[in-house]
Amino acid sequence: MKNTRQNNLDFLFHPNSIALVGITTATTWHWTRTFLEGLIEIEFDRPLYLVNPKGGEIEGRQIYTSLKDVPGNIDYVIGLVNAQIAPKLVEECAEKGVRAIHFCTAGFSETGEEPRIKLESELAEAARRNGIRILGPNCMGIYCPKSHLSFSPAFPKESGPVGVISQSGGNSIYLVRQAALRGIRFSKVISYGNACDINESDLLEYLANDPDTKIIALYIEGIKDGKRFRRALEEATKEKTVVLLKGGTTDGGARAVAGHTAALAGSRVTWDALCKQLGIISVSSLEEMIDVLVTLLFLPLPGGRNALLFGAGGGASVLIADEFESRGLKVPPIPKEIVAQIREFTPIAGNILRNPVDYSQAMTNTEGVLKTFAILSSWDGADFLITFVRTGQFTSSRISETWVENLLMSKFPIKQGLFPKPVAMVIEPSLMPEEAEAILAAIRSSIASGLPVYYSFATAANAINLVLTHTERQSKKF
Amino acid sequence: MKNTRQNNLDFLFHPNSIALVGITTATTWHWTRTFLEGLIEIEFDRPLYLVNPKGGEIEGRQIYTSLKDVPGNIDYVIGLVNAQIAPKLVEECAEKGVRAIHFCTAGFSETGEEPRIKLESELAEAARRNGIRILGPNCMGIYCPKSHLSFSPAFPKESGPVGVISQSGGNSIYLVRQAALRGIRFSKVISYGNACDINESDLLEYLANDPDTKIIALYIEGIKDGKRFRRALEEATKEKTVVLLKGGTTDGGARAVAGHTAALAGSRVTWDALCKQLGIISVSSLEEMIDVLVTLLFLPLPGGRNALLFGAGGGASVLIADEFESRGLKVPPIPKEIVAQIREFTPIAGNILRNPVDYSQAMTNTEGVLKTFAILSSWDGADFLITFVRTGQFTSSRISETWVENLLMSKFPIKQGLFPKPVAMVIEPSLMPEEAEAILAAIRSSIASGLPVYYSFATAANAINLVLTHTERQSKKF
Repeated sequence: MKNTRQNNLDFLFHPNSIALVGITTATTWHWTRTFLEGLIEIEFDRPLYLVNPKGGEIEGRQIYTSLKDVPGNIDYVIGLVNAQIAPKLVEECAEKGVRAIHFCTAGFSETGEEPRIKLESELAEAARRNGIRILGPNCMGIYCPKSHLSFSPAFPKESGPVGVISQSGGNSIYLVRQAALRGIRFSKVISYGNACDINESDLLEYLANDPDTKIIALYIEGIKDGKRFRRALEEATKEKTVVLLKGGTTDGGARAVAGHTAALAGSRVTWDALCKQLGIISVSSLEEMIDVLVTLLFLPLPGGRNALLFGAGGGASVLIADEFESRGLKVPPIPKEIVAQIREFTPIAGNILRNPVDYSQAMTNTEGVLKTFAILSSWDGADFLITFVRTGQFTSSRISETWVENLLMSKFPIKQGLFPKPVAMVIEPSLMPEEAEAILAAIRSSIASGLPVYYSFATAANAINLVLTHTERQSKKF
Repeated sequence: MKNTRQNNLDFLFHPNSIALVGITTATTWHWTRTFLEGLIEIEFDRPLYLVNPKGGEIEGRQIYTSLKDVPGNIDYVIGLVNAQIAPKLVEECAEKGVRAIHFCTAGFSETGEEPRIKLESELAEAARRNGIRILGPNCMGIYCPKSHLSFSPAFPKESGPVGVISQSGGNSIYLVRQAALRGIRFSKVISYGNACDINESDLLEYLANDPDTKIIALYIEGIKDGKRFRRALEEATKEKTVVLLKGGTTDGGARAVAGHTAALAGSRVTWDALCKQLGIISVSSLEEMIDVLVTLLFLPLPGGRNALLFGAGGGASVLIADEFESRGLKVPPIPKEIVAQIREFTPIAGNILRNPVDYSQAMTNTEGVLKTFAILSSWDGADFLITFVRTGQFTSSRISETWVENLLMSKFPIKQGLFPKPVAMVIEPSLMPEEAEAILAAIRSSIASGLPVYYSFATAANAINLVLTHTERQSKKF
């Protein structure tokens, strides 16, 4: 019972049944359980089978001793077996009518050792011969909340507009978990590893045409077919925004790439030129990628580069102004007539009515803050407003709390859309146990209000600059 | 009873008695209480008086209605009064024989308003006339743990080798609190604000000759006398390492400086040239300043730029290698014979023995990790070792915990000095409530083991590069 080899990858994201082959039979926790936990947590609602020659059960679920003993059909296998027996598993899958295998298994070409490189070729050949598609090996597979697929119990259940193609499993997990904290949700995330069969171009062509994906984020270590990948990128950028992190742009990074997914990295210059030409936002870290995604998703596009910065602390005001202006944004002075309007109801000491506005009033006078914010956001000189709170500058957690309560929480409801200009928030997470929880709550409340939240002055300025630069380039193009 | 005006500032740091003038009489918390709380927390052990015309008491302490009612002598006054009555307070202090006043009070020249600028001149003139030195106005004053002075209850009680001169109060608090979390302790921290009397040159000359201060960190917005400050810097750099953050290096930042401490900012180019010439480490944010201080204090100076990176995750390995090499450090390949030694006791799958070393074994085999670490740190090709853990890349907090326990905590005692090379740690704090506490504990345990701890790949690479560049420049100089 053999399938025709599928070229349209849509079936990968909608398996009717899954078998986890090689899952631990031990009663203690083992990393192979991650996949079971992930599927349970995301409420995978079709048949899910566990297979291990040792048999037994995990948490009340039977472990079948072989694939052929599984009573129903199996669409999709997650291979957790030892590398040496991986090609044999492909044959067994073929007999069972499996359409695709995701091999999490490592120990192939990424080791750089000849027998292991050969083993990977055998794996790919076995798949081709049997009409089965392989994702991996050496990867985490697919997260697709809409169809209840996940490889981590820590991922959100809700879907969102960001599609991710990541050669690295760890980087894809990092991206989803950290981005989820910032309010980002995903359509499909694919960790594809050594790409012995399904590769970055297959996946990019798929996401380019996926109606659930509006933004495509790529973590790429190396590519199999440069020309095809370039065509896929061109296609993808026509309708969608593409953000790319290229791993291995230095000599040391390129050597690490070879050891990680056995790919050839390519030079920094080539990739930068490609991104510029195709209108791709190029980033140099996962943190920067998340900041850019936050900006694309939650900051309504500002009409220009003029920032109105509003927050607490004279020294903080100087530093945030420097960070913004040194990253291509502008912090224009507020005209006297606007200042006069605010001065009418604002005491002079401790409230510096320049840009940035250092507004101690926020501690006690919520009405004053709202009035000030309304006046400032109506001013033509500002294209967007940033509210900043750096709690570490206060002498005690008592003051931090007051600030967080008054400026961020229920008392001062800054919501996206409440004022005539886009609003963003810079709030630094705190490591001080006495205030960490309150600040995390404030971050979440701001995200729930539709605000882009950045963790530092520099990262906010950098991400907004990257997105504005991208927009300006795109508008010149058409 | 008038004093002779003091030029040696040592008396500022050793007052025999203090009066807090203008402290709130309210029973509810008010910001002026910060100074009382700070002094109590740091166990100020000489007479401490509270003064407010309303009288009353706070937490069992009498509030005197005027300075002259205070029974004992007063060396040092912390002025928390309204700006308008500040010059009058100077006269009252003179009558009481006060030697120095720190004015926290704001609302002077930083407002940019003529009557307020005049008020500050009157204040300075009153001080000069009466032989009293003034710190401020518009600042937080002095933190000196050795003599039990503090302006925040959140500051450490222990002393350390870092002296800080900060024009901004908020920035000085941020620096002390965040740096304290990283294991840094301070000799003296002075927030000096508008500098109507005591200025940055006075303070720098003092710290340059202070035997308790080995490293001087400066946050400067503007200078009163460029030539004198330059001479003071030259003097300071002869014996000590100086790290400088210049606020207001952009147009917007310079305008913020004017509104904050009424200083003239000066151009970026001028300051950069000065730092290069005098061998000062120039930084562009407080975060970067803290990273540099951590490196100077806790990383034994590496013999060169070759990093051996050791941690978890193939994708993380690629990214950390890129961050290090793109910031002027080297990540050299490990020779085959060294790999062979480690391979003897290390399985092939999941343990990538390149540089970075991606060592999954760390999860289960502590002995193997220690052996590997010993072999790698004896290799001549590495000048220093970095251990990195990015818990966000794991699928669940269960795996993070195992890593944190095995690699960072008691089971794997990486201590500074245990291996032949300097060792540093990159561990990202986590915002995920289920693991935040364990990771914070690991950070603290690493710091207690004498390790420099960095929060990200990029900041580690950046700070180590800045310090190595500084050292290389200094060695060429002599």
